[in-house]
Amino acid sequence: MTSRDNCLKLDVDDPLAFARARFRIPDGIVYLDGNSLGALPVTTAARVADVIGREWGGDLIRSWNKADWIGLPLRVGKRIAPLIGAGEDEVIAADSTSVNLFKLAAAALKHQSPRRVILTERENFPTDQYVLQGLDSLLGSAVELRTVAREELLEALNEDVALLALTHIDYKTGAIHDMATISAAAHKVGALALWDLSHSAGAVELSLNRDGADLAIGCGYKYLNGGPGAPAYLFVARHLQEKLVQPLSGWMGHAAPFDFSDRYSPASGMLRFLSGTPVVIGMAAFEEGLKTFDGISMRDVQAKARALGDLFLSLVEEQCSDAGFIIGCPRDSSKRGSQVCLRHSEGYAIMQALIAGGVIGDFRAPDVMRFGFAPLYTRYVDVFDAVAKLADIVHREVWREERYRISAAVT
Amino acid sequence: MTSRDNCLKLDVDDPLAFARARFRIPDGIVYLDGNSLGALPVTTAARVADVIGREWGGDLIRSWNKADWIGLPLRVGKRIAPLIGAGEDEVIAADSTSVNLFKLAAAALKHQSPRRVILTERENFPTDQYVLQGLDSLLGSAVELRTVAREELLEALNEDVALLALTHIDYKTGAIHDMATISAAAHKVGALALWDLSHSAGAVELSLNRDGADLAIGCGYKYLNGGPGAPAYLFVARHLQEKLVQPLSGWMGHAAPFDFSDRYSPASGMLRFLSGTPVVIGMAAFEEGLKTFDGISMRDVQAKARALGDLFLSLVEEQCSDAGFIIGCPRDSSKRGSQVCLRHSEGYAIMQALIAGGVIGDFRAPDVMRFGFAPLYTRYVDVFDAVAKLADIVHREVWREERYRISAAVT
Repeated sequence: MTSRDNCLKLDVDDPLAFARARFRIPDGIVYLDGNSLGALPVTTAARVADVIGREWGGDLIRSWNKADWIGLPLRVGKRIAPLIGAGEDEVIAADSTSVNLFKLAAAALKHQSPRRVILTERENFPTDQYVLQGLDSLLGSAVELRTVAREELLEALNEDVALLALTHIDYKTGAIHDMATISAAAHKVGALALWDLSHSAGAVELSLNRDGADLAIGCGYKYLNGGPGAPAYLFVARHLQEKLVQPLSGWMGHAAPFDFSDRYSPASGMLRFLSGTPVVIGMAAFEEGLKTFDGISMRDVQAKARALGDLFLSLVEEQCSDAGFIIGCPRDSSKRGSQVCLRHSEGYAIMQALIAGGVIGDFRAPDVMRFGFAPLYTRYVDVFDAVAKLADIVHREVWREERYRISAAVT
Repeated sequence: MTSRDNCLKLDVDDPLAFARARFRIPDGIVYLDGNSLGALPVTTAARVADVIGREWGGDLIRSWNKADWIGLPLRVGKRIAPLIGAGEDEVIAADSTSVNLFKLAAAALKHQSPRRVILTERENFPTDQYVLQGLDSLLGSAVELRTVAREELLEALNEDVALLALTHIDYKTGAIHDMATISAAAHKVGALALWDLSHSAGAVELSLNRDGADLAIGCGYKYLNGGPGAPAYLFVARHLQEKLVQPLSGWMGHAAPFDFSDRYSPASGMLRFLSGTPVVIGMAAFEEGLKTFDGISMRDVQAKARALGDLFLSLVEEQCSDAGFIIGCPRDSSKRGSQVCLRHSEGYAIMQALIAGGVIGDFRAPDVMRFGFAPLYTRYVDVFDAVAKLADIVHREVWREERYRISAAVT
């Protein structure tokens, strides 16, 4: 049996233990939802206050140059690059993940013409599916969206395929795709590989260039700690940047935005993937979120992510073996992101009771309880306390209380 | 001759004088660039600090419900609606102006099929032109973008036209389109009328429903005081909402985003025009910006905008008649937004000298000096002091100093 003292000992030995001080975690809360909204970095409030008070309030319009607001999208991109194994000139922050997927999928399709198939899997994150469906519906016969089951993906990769679009880590099960093998398979038939890193970046070791990713998108508000609705980002491999032109061709992607010419001419490099004016306050908060990774080894992050997940599952097996939970994620931590899931027919009520008890995870219909481990601030003892609370709730059947059974919109 | 005392008297009698206290304007600055970036409302810093510290830091993921983050786009839209003469259920905040234009233009085009012409004018705001060019390039033969000179617009409106897309107030000259007449002309041939309100909302009286606008977009960071890179907004007339489906169909526009179904099904009403996750911090700042319009009559705003512009031009005529300025905006204030422009071959250097002297306007190539009057915080005496500084600079030829002649990116 794993004791709480064992977990405290693991925290003492944790090479990432120092990073928790970079966050403000409320007292009495075990926060296991950093895979949905990262915790607040201690520096963000002061940075945003300075952007608002001094840069906006004091320097007004001059801050576009003086505070280099105009440089934020590339500057934030440069901070993301090392976390995902990309070059500093291959990443830019912009818009939302959904909008960025649209841009890159449309640009890739045009580049790959006359190929017109976009291949994805049914398990892809819903918003990614919706966006691809939107592009399909807009372009009519110029695109064919093929959505297959996960196990049929490699077989479906043929020379019709212009673009393979996948989410690297499944939002529900935490299952991880083998980026290198799948990207290579795509390249073998002449397809481009696009990866959604929303549930990967900041949680596992990524090496986009080594693993042959052509394109990638991801969100800023999960493991990257950019704050609620933080801007998203996109990656385009260097050799493709000048070949792709995206259709949301707003002025910030223009070669000379302040010439106000009447013809669009795409900027060089990643700037061409911008559309409208960047959200300055959100970009500044995102930049602070990324600073929580300063001096952090992504290898350590991945190792701790796996260890925390394994600990959680072992404790559940030890303490809740009779409670009707089904492990809904890969048991092998190398095949899993930094989250686990338990399936239970009463999962919604159990999660509500857990949250009321100070352990915050989330629920995804129909029966999935998700627990995410943000290695920068989740401790081994947090995992112990979370499972202890879970065991208490299921053994005393606390979840049967009426107040935990009322469904509401959850995020 | 208009004296400074006359202007002080006008300020005393100004029915909007009380609103200036809603902003923090730096001492010693005359800020005439609210048409590019609105000034900082006094409540914004505290609101954003609360969103970051309490809502994000303290309540974490629970704030999507508890602080109604999920309701922000519609809530912000409801505050915009009365400023533009729209129904509360006709406006939503989202993305950037450029992205919103793409959504609405694409949706309108599909709805109007088999018509495939988008008509716009060469003087349209550059980013709007670029976005329409991007859509044109993406859709190939399914769309034809016709860009004509302003005076040819009405003539070019024929039964091929699916959508007429115009900016209501010209960003450079301040010239204002007659929304009612042009929308009616569009309807007469069966076209839809889309208006970019970026330089109108918060500056002039707008009545979208009365004037027959079908669609509109606009930005949050100019006269609406939402902060740098604030989210934008879009308007869809009630009768069209259920008929239009936009292609950036992310999860926030889904009828049931948290069901995570794998088929997109558009939400009812304005929610279907959302794409990805809303930028919470930026939306909160935008909401505070809009509160500066609480209890304000847009008729008063428009009257003061015209009076300030007229005063500026009269003072320039009185004090700088020999300086080589050409008035680049309509002299008739009813044909002009809340900005004026002066053209001068040395406009860049003169504007740099003005800014160094504490009067902030902006410059647009090749020779346009813009001065915007935000009626909530610009005083008559500010206009007097600005022109006095301008007169001093041109009479003493201060702008000839080397330091004012070095070109740099300006926004």
